[in-house]
Order: sequence, then C-alpha cells, then structure tokens
Amino acid sequence: MRTHRKHDYPLSDIRRFLEPGPIVLVSSAWQGERNLMTMGWHCMLGFEPALFGCYIWEENHSHALIKRSRECVINLPTADLLDAVVGIGNCSGTEGDKFERFGLTAMPASKVGAPLVEECHANFECRLQKHLPDYGFFIWEVVKAHVAASPKRPRTVHYRGEGEFMLSGPHVSRRRLFKPEML
Amino acid sequence: MRTHRKHDYPLSDIRRFLEPGPIVLVSSAWQGERNLMTMGWHCMLGFEPALFGCYIWEENHSHALIKRSRECVINLPTADLLDAVVGIGNCSGTEGDKFERFGLTAMPASKVGAPLVEECHANFECRLQKHLPDYGFFIWEVVKAHVAASPKRPRTVHYRGEGEFMLSGPHVSRRRLFKPEML
Repeated sequence: MRTHRKHDYPLSDIRRFLEPGPIVLVSSAWQGERNLMTMGWHCMLGFEPALFGCYIWEENHSHALIKRSRECVINLPTADLLDAVVGIGNCSGTEGDKFERFGLTAMPASKVGAPLVEECHANFECRLQKHLPDYGFFIWEVVKAHVAASPKRPRTVHYRGEGEFMLSGPHVSRRRLFKPEML
Repeated sequence: MRTHRKHDYPLSDIRRFLEPGPIVLVSSAWQGERNLMTMGWHCMLGFEPALFGCYIWEENHSHALIKRSRECVINLPTADLLDAVVGIGNCSGTEGDKFERFGLTAMPASKVGAPLVEECHANFECRLQKHLPDYGFFIWEVVKAHVAASPKRPRTVHYRGEGEFMLSGPHVSRRRLFKPEML
C-alpha cells in the first residue's frame, strides 16, 4: 500500500473530497486505546467553519472513544485500500488493534489525539461541535486538513449496500454553466 | 430526456441509491407554489424507519416551502440530466417555474404534496421528522420510494465543487468478505 506526501489543505475546500460521498475511515483514541471504523453516512454542513456531520451507531466500539474524546480523524481511503476498508467494517475493535491487523500506519495528528491513517489520500482532524444522541448524529468542526499532492482526483470507493461498491468514475466539468458566485 | 417506469421500492433498501453520495433534486410545494433545488449535502441516518438528513441553506427559495410544508421529495437524477441539474442549482425559484424552464415533468406524489420529478431514476417522498435551524439540518422520514426497474445501477452524478462532477464508475463486489449480518 502506498503512503502519500501530504500538504496542509484549505479547510473551506474539503468539500472537494467529502461531498461526492466516499466511504471514509474514522480513527479515534481515548486513554491509550485507539480504533478505526468504516463509515458512509456523512455529509458536509458548512464551509467556514468547515462543518461535517455523520451518523455513528452506538453499538460500534468507536462510539464510546469518540463520544468521550470528542475528537476524531476522517480519513479518505482510495480503491487500493478496498479490502482493508471492508475488513475494518466487518470486525470489532474489541477483537484487537485494527491498524496492526490491516497493516495501516497510525501517524500523530497535529490538533487532536486520534491518529491519522498514513495510507489514506487525505486526513481531516475533527473536534466535536454537537452530538444529537436521539439520531446518532455527530456534527464536527474540521480543524486541520492533510491532503496528498497527487492525484488531484483520487479513485474513491462508494458503498451501495449488500457488499457492493461503486468506484469513482469519469470527470466532467460544467464550469461554464455556473454563475461565478456559485463556484 | 427519458421517463421511467417505476415500482414501489422497499424503504429499508433506499441506501443503495443515497449512500454513494449522488447529487439529488429536492422538490417542494406550498400553497400553490412549487420549486426544485439541487443538493449534495445529505446522508442516510437509519434503515427502519428510513431516515435521511440534509442541509438546506435558508437563503434558498426552497427553504421556506420546505419548512412550511414539512415535506419534500428527494429525486435521483442520472448523468443525462446533468445540464438540468446544474441549471437548477444556478437559478432561483423566484425567477420562474423550474419544471417548465428545464423541461421536467411534475407528477403527483402519493403521500406528500411535493411533486415527483418523472425524469429522475428514483423519487423518495419525505416527511419532516426534525429541523435543526442552528445547523440548517433537516431530518426526514422517507415514507414512500419509487424506483425505475432498470438499470439496476444508474449512472449518478457527484459534485466535487468548482463546477466539476464525478460520474459513478465501475461496480465492484466484495460480498464474499462480508459477515452475513453486515449485509
């Protein structure tokens, strides 16, 4: 698996990677324990501050680490990591460390305690802004973004349910049809 | 533009179309007025009941219709509708009826007052369950789903910002790597 040279990325532009709806890996840490989970129920909620929302089931082992630490990292895997993505989603953090099990590298984040997944194309460090326990919904402020310099448009994986994925496909620009203020 | 023969679809399976993160068209109606908006900030929030969340900016003309009627329809456009999708996102409902302007057909829904967009691959009728005005976030219960019989995997459009779209790409199954209870 590749690792990536990453750069700081403008927080107001992270929608480029998150709005298309990719599966992400959520990393968390609390009192010496760390975990990883696969997650596809998420959306952008704001540009400045950069807000991001996601659903996390309370039965997930990560739920407790995330709720207690009030921090996480959203990591963007590419198609070469698909088997790890599926494996991470199909085992529990109670069965052992998922970084070791799936050969992934935990790197220190700069603003939160949860680790970055080095092999992912991008890593978004998040601090909890609001938790809605009735809906399992967490609203995060993204406080730091690390993005690989290339490729500009990574091949992401998108989940259809029933064990089926869609890989990101052709690039199409319609820039000429946009009003300037809509870009 | 094609129209589709559609069938009732199980509400617990709508994640197949919404979880991959496509751009959708939101239709709304209130007191004789109707509107359409383009939207990419959304996510699944539950299977049964089928819950779906989305961000709607209060400056959008649709915001008032949706907030007052407490209903909407989420319509899934395919790549052949891309220019209409962009056009709808780049004009306001205050400038005239968007169905007429973009040659789209409004069909009556069965459980809500907002119309279905006939030319879309799928239509999901929604009733408001929770509005979080501080975050512009709406949580919907999907109460009826209409889905075209084919193709099974429509070519959807996903927004990257800056006028750029990604079209849904190759299909990959990893079903064999899933635990039965995860399918």
